Amino acid sequence: MNGQHFQSIWFDESDNSVNVIDQTCLPHRFETVKLNTLADACYAIEAMQVRGAPLIGITAVYGVYLALLENPNQLAVAVDRLAATRPTAVNLQWALDRMNAALRNTLVDKRVGVALQQARSMEAEDSAICAEIGTQGAKLLQEIWNAKLDQSKPLNILTHCNAGALAAVDWGTALSVIYKTAQAGVPLHVWVDETRPRNQGASLTCWELGQQQIAHTLIVDNAGGHLMQQGLVDCCVVGSDRTTITGDVCNKIGTYLKALAAFDNDVPFFVALPVSSIDFTLTDGIKEIPIEERDVEEVSHLKGIDANGLVSKVRLCPEGVAVSNFGFDVTPARLVTKIITEKGVFDAEQSQLQRLRR
Amino acid sequence: MNGQHFQSIWFDESDNSVNVIDQTCLPHRFETVKLNTLADACYAIEAMQVRGAPLIGITAVYGVYLALLENPNQLAVAVDRLAATRPTAVNLQWALDRMNAALRNTLVDKRVGVALQQARSMEAEDSAICAEIGTQGAKLLQEIWNAKLDQSKPLNILTHCNAGALAAVDWGTALSVIYKTAQAGVPLHVWVDETRPRNQGASLTCWELGQQQIAHTLIVDNAGGHLMQQGLVDCCVVGSDRTTITGDVCNKIGTYLKALAAFDNDVPFFVALPVSSIDFTLTDGIKEIPIEERDVEEVSHLKGIDANGLVSKVRLCPEGVAVSNFGFDVTPARLVTKIITEKGVFDAEQSQLQRLRR
Repeated sequence: MNGQHFQSIWFDESDNSVNVIDQTCLPHRFETVKLNTLADACYAIEAMQVRGAPLIGITAVYGVYLALLENPNQLAVAVDRLAATRPTAVNLQWALDRMNAALRNTLVDKRVGVALQQARSMEAEDSAICAEIGTQGAKLLQEIWNAKLDQSKPLNILTHCNAGALAAVDWGTALSVIYKTAQAGVPLHVWVDETRPRNQGASLTCWELGQQQIAHTLIVDNAGGHLMQQGLVDCCVVGSDRTTITGDVCNKIGTYLKALAAFDNDVPFFVALPVSSIDFTLTDGIKEIPIEERDVEEVSHLKGIDANGLVSKVRLCPEGVAVSNFGFDVTPARLVTKIITEKGVFDAEQSQLQRLRR
Repeated sequence: MNGQHFQSIWFDESDNSVNVIDQTCLPHRFETVKLNTLADACYAIEAMQVRGAPLIGITAVYGVYLALLENPNQLAVAVDRLAATRPTAVNLQWALDRMNAALRNTLVDKRVGVALQQARSMEAEDSAICAEIGTQGAKLLQEIWNAKLDQSKPLNILTHCNAGALAAVDWGTALSVIYKTAQAGVPLHVWVDETRPRNQGASLTCWELGQQQIAHTLIVDNAGGHLMQQGLVDCCVVGSDRTTITGDVCNKIGTYLKALAAFDNDVPFFVALPVSSIDFTLTDGIKEIPIEERDVEEVSHLKGIDANGLVSKVRLCPEGVAVSNFGFDVTPARLVTKIITEKGVFDAEQSQLQRLRR
């Protein structure tokens, strides 16, 4: 952020607070929020002050710490409450399970200390995992670049939503791959899907890539198919909120449409994700992954900055129109070229992914 | 409109003006505009006060009349100027060619009268053609309804952009099919793609279906794939701005992505269009159809009604972000189930479509 390094979440020892970048204010204002209570943490996740599968997990883990700080006897209550904040991302549950396992046999008067230690350790681990996802994926993109016939043009990468540093503690998943590829010296350019309805692409990914000085162009979600038909996309890289052991990928609504277009045009479609977002209990993503339905106002209304420089919300459609707002869709494994994890790059197949099971 | 019948364009004999609904004001305000000059007509098309392939054609034809009213010697100038307003829709050129053919051998002092007669005749013809497209398509949708296993739910139709009465003189193309199907007694419900960047779905199609009391739900463009995966779409019906003789369909950007999803989920994908929008000179839509690139502000900014009831424009992304804004994409014939025209229903194949050549 303007040359100063920020994580998306950090602990402040001076007042025992958990601090996050309020992502609902970006790109128009950079604001941070102090979380002091369980309620603060739940609100931050539900109102999407924080979002992105890895960051939701770490925020929930800190939420347990904040809950115990309020009352060391409310471990089970806190875990249940936090688990209910968002239904689709599986590493929310994974992170809470780990936290619970570390705490449930801990004496009540030691829980606060252990919880903080565990949360800080998982925060550091998330950052390291995301960095490694980038390193693994960059090898793949370097290969695509090396094979690109016309190197007078940069490597064109399409991404959907924000799977960047803002979606994790740091680095991100899909954008970590892009950052590490750029660091390796590959000239690249990113097509950023605006990602309706919440516009995480237009607001967060554009902002983040701008901060990192990575060349990028904003497009509407409708445009990707045409760009791929015209040979203007060399590969797609997206994140995942939940992945089945068979390689079906649940990610922000619209990801499936881009995967179809990539498949139809022989464009490699890569999904970058931490192993913690693989749900080893599921084999059919379309049938088994619960898809969150969100507030219809996310579709009917839109927030931006008006001519006077003020953040304003406008309604796009006639008043009272019925609206449906599914938050995610599932991309079947057959459309996924490779899955990029911190443990290496895999085909989207059960025979490969089950090796990641602990 | 509130029980009163409006066409999208009409001639007012009292002052020799051409009148249109200003579609840039919908759905928030219903306003009409008087076109009195060639410049007015060009502006109406370029600023998208009028849009939709059929309506653009009829507006251009009236534009020739208005030009001759100003100066009966400027036929060629007027035709060239109007032809340049929008590059993708082919029946703009088709309509101007017909007008030119009717006028170029007409004595200069008779041109104004002939031009008006020709324009009014083409206006009436467009309305009749669109009504017939609806009648032809309704037979197809009735078949889908008859074959639907679970008739406790309505026939779910997904549409993209606005190919309705607002896109033509009256009736429309895709929505004409829907209106005629509803008139035939089929219970139906329409999923309306919002259709970024200009949101013709959210603003125009929702407004139009509301006026016609057709059940509908607004969705973001990203949602259609998920709905089709979940069995919530029985068929798609869209319009076309230009169709090759081989059945490739050029329509509003994003249509291709929906056709891919329909194909992947065995959902019939229908394209409703007047024969005048078939370009019999083209065989490869992806290579040969020029795709209009429009003002980047259509992507970076969005117009809606604010909390005070005022129409306001807001910026969605960081200031100064690079933006790309292609207006159309091409859906290859292999993804099109049937082409619905006023002359009947056809497979998207050259062997069938060439029979429509005059």
